[in-house]
Amino acid sequence: MSEQHAPFSRAEYDRRLAKTRAAMEKAGIDLLFVEDPSNMAWLTGYDGWSFYVHQGVLVFHDADPLWWGRRQDANGALRTVWMVDSQVHGYADHFVQSTERHPMQDLAEIILARGYGDKRIGVELENYYFSAKAYLTLREELPGAELIDATALVNWQRGVKSDEELGFMRRAAAISERIVDGIVERVEPGLPKNELVAEILRDAIRGTGEDWGDYPAIVPLLPSGPDAAAPHLTWDGRRFETGAATFYEISGCYRRYHAPLCRTVFLGTPPEHILRAEAALVEGLEAGLEAARAGNRACDIANALAAPLTRAGIERGARCGYPIGLSYPPDWGERTVSLRTEDETVLEPGMTFHFMPGLWMENWGLEITESILIRDSGPAETFCNRPRKLIVKG
Amino acid sequence: MSEQHAPFSRAEYDRRLAKTRAAMEKAGIDLLFVEDPSNMAWLTGYDGWSFYVHQGVLVFHDADPLWWGRRQDANGALRTVWMVDSQVHGYADHFVQSTERHPMQDLAEIILARGYGDKRIGVELENYYFSAKAYLTLREELPGAELIDATALVNWQRGVKSDEELGFMRRAAAISERIVDGIVERVEPGLPKNELVAEILRDAIRGTGEDWGDYPAIVPLLPSGPDAAAPHLTWDGRRFETGAATFYEISGCYRRYHAPLCRTVFLGTPPEHILRAEAALVEGLEAGLEAARAGNRACDIANALAAPLTRAGIERGARCGYPIGLSYPPDWGERTVSLRTEDETVLEPGMTFHFMPGLWMENWGLEITESILIRDSGPAETFCNRPRKLIVKG
Repeated sequence: MSEQHAPFSRAEYDRRLAKTRAAMEKAGIDLLFVEDPSNMAWLTGYDGWSFYVHQGVLVFHDADPLWWGRRQDANGALRTVWMVDSQVHGYADHFVQSTERHPMQDLAEIILARGYGDKRIGVELENYYFSAKAYLTLREELPGAELIDATALVNWQRGVKSDEELGFMRRAAAISERIVDGIVERVEPGLPKNELVAEILRDAIRGTGEDWGDYPAIVPLLPSGPDAAAPHLTWDGRRFETGAATFYEISGCYRRYHAPLCRTVFLGTPPEHILRAEAALVEGLEAGLEAARAGNRACDIANALAAPLTRAGIERGARCGYPIGLSYPPDWGERTVSLRTEDETVLEPGMTFHFMPGLWMENWGLEITESILIRDSGPAETFCNRPRKLIVKG
Repeated sequence: MSEQHAPFSRAEYDRRLAKTRAAMEKAGIDLLFVEDPSNMAWLTGYDGWSFYVHQGVLVFHDADPLWWGRRQDANGALRTVWMVDSQVHGYADHFVQSTERHPMQDLAEIILARGYGDKRIGVELENYYFSAKAYLTLREELPGAELIDATALVNWQRGVKSDEELGFMRRAAAISERIVDGIVERVEPGLPKNELVAEILRDAIRGTGEDWGDYPAIVPLLPSGPDAAAPHLTWDGRRFETGAATFYEISGCYRRYHAPLCRTVFLGTPPEHILRAEAALVEGLEAGLEAARAGNRACDIANALAAPLTRAGIERGARCGYPIGLSYPPDWGERTVSLRTEDETVLEPGMTFHFMPGLWMENWGLEITESILIRDSGPAETFCNRPRKLIVKG
């Protein structure tokens, strides 16, 4: 039986660890604890659907990372992380969902045993899975330590992708294209929506040729007609109808790396106001892609997008994109940069974004998006290659 | 275009609200804030993949609940909750993933405006999406309020299912059966694992006849051979092999309600030790089901299970089950009762559990499980109807 193993080279993990340690140094952090499963995976190769119990990675300046989690999941860590077995620690099951004890008591023991009880410890205060209770327990068990907010410290190190990572994202993009092609081929009036989703997920997991599909961090989102004003509604069994637009927010996923691609399909004859919005949106997308260059800023993309929309009388309140790469549920964004007028982050070669200017109006919605790569020079490259337009069927 | 609407009757939501208010009263809570998407859905009917940003429901003693979340998701709330539109509040997008402000500042304003600034406010301290930062921000913005740990307060109210809920779970169970039948039919040596998962998800979302399938809160888990010792590994493209067992942890899902069903398939001739484990496990399952009666306790199920296993020399460290019902990722358990020797919760008619005595050993794993309903009298009913055995294929 072949063993699973971390998806990247040791050199790549060393690169990631060095970046993270440098960021820790800069922030005055002696020890870093990450519970974000995406950060855990990026640092160690750990992969498993175990983030519903407390788990994490301790990052030291002067020793290899330590994977910490539930004992049964330690078996999964042994099979997926690059570190040696002694760097995998599993806590007993009686800590799980107990009112009498908390797993963070076990973590605190490790931290104390290793001499960090009076040190500066970074924790991801604003992150899924690192609950208020987890923080309060660590606080109580480590009264001599200083707990520092290290939210997104690792996420920021993930921003510029290595060539190895870009390779994974290109594979994910090929799966995204296949998914969208399948949607366009199959959707028609009378088809129950869940049946289309069933095919979307089948295409997503079948992947393309050599590349098996991993589960996307978000399920397919595809609200129709007036429901399209609510971008995160999931499906039911109602049938597609003539006279309505449905936008499809999907992504292929290859070994946790995503390349989202959204398109909208109108069944029937689109009304004037949606065609006007399409024209403005496509013009805004083109302008945004032009502005998406190394040396420009995140806000430049947002401002370039906004101009044609404003001229067409469309005001978007929301941001128009976010970084992408590796991710676990519930989100495929990296939660660092936002493509919006307030964000002056400088774009660097190797950064990757989902350029996502969705229009979610009171009674209709339109999404035409691209996953993009900031290049050394020139405008951004799109990972996928599909026409940027509203798709109209029969 | 037909509108979406809450899945249950108004009387059912009134029942749920009354139970919750009584529990709040008992705990001395003046105002309850729930961020657990399962609790939000159970109380209001809200449904959407929006739990990756802060959102929640405020439960008052003397007014209808208030849905609070991101402005674009407020559109989804308008389409799914039972309350009137004025009970839906959306915060501006500039609160989302900002380092300058936090959505909890917006929530705090509402709480203050409604006169609860100096009251006792329940919050779910130990919950996936209620981050440490969310807690600390509320703490800072409401210095006069007492923040009380209301973790699982609503979850406990969900324990005994109404007939309406049991109806949904039976539909989910029919989907679970279809998924397992499809697995048994398709799995064979040489089949790439992701291709089987693609069919599993297709079956899951197609549902059965009238009943469309909703997304399960956990993706299919199906590690093979020695990887089966790590219960939460997800798939890749490696092919099934003769001489290995694979366990399948799956669930149908109907409108967020689950009925998990796990089975194990061995391709080839199972070795003696796995057959001995199967025999002990099935005996333990039968004993556990016999003990799963109203008036008995959670630990009685666990102890009944343990006896045959101990006689066969198998010691399980983990609990052997948990309550199920409605859920959102990352978990389909209700996080209240655990079927384990420490838990003396009395079983009541209408409680539902995933009786899940997985064996995850160093080099092999075996799962044969049942979703069960505690009845008024007699042993538990199983939601699914499939043989309890290791499935062996050529």
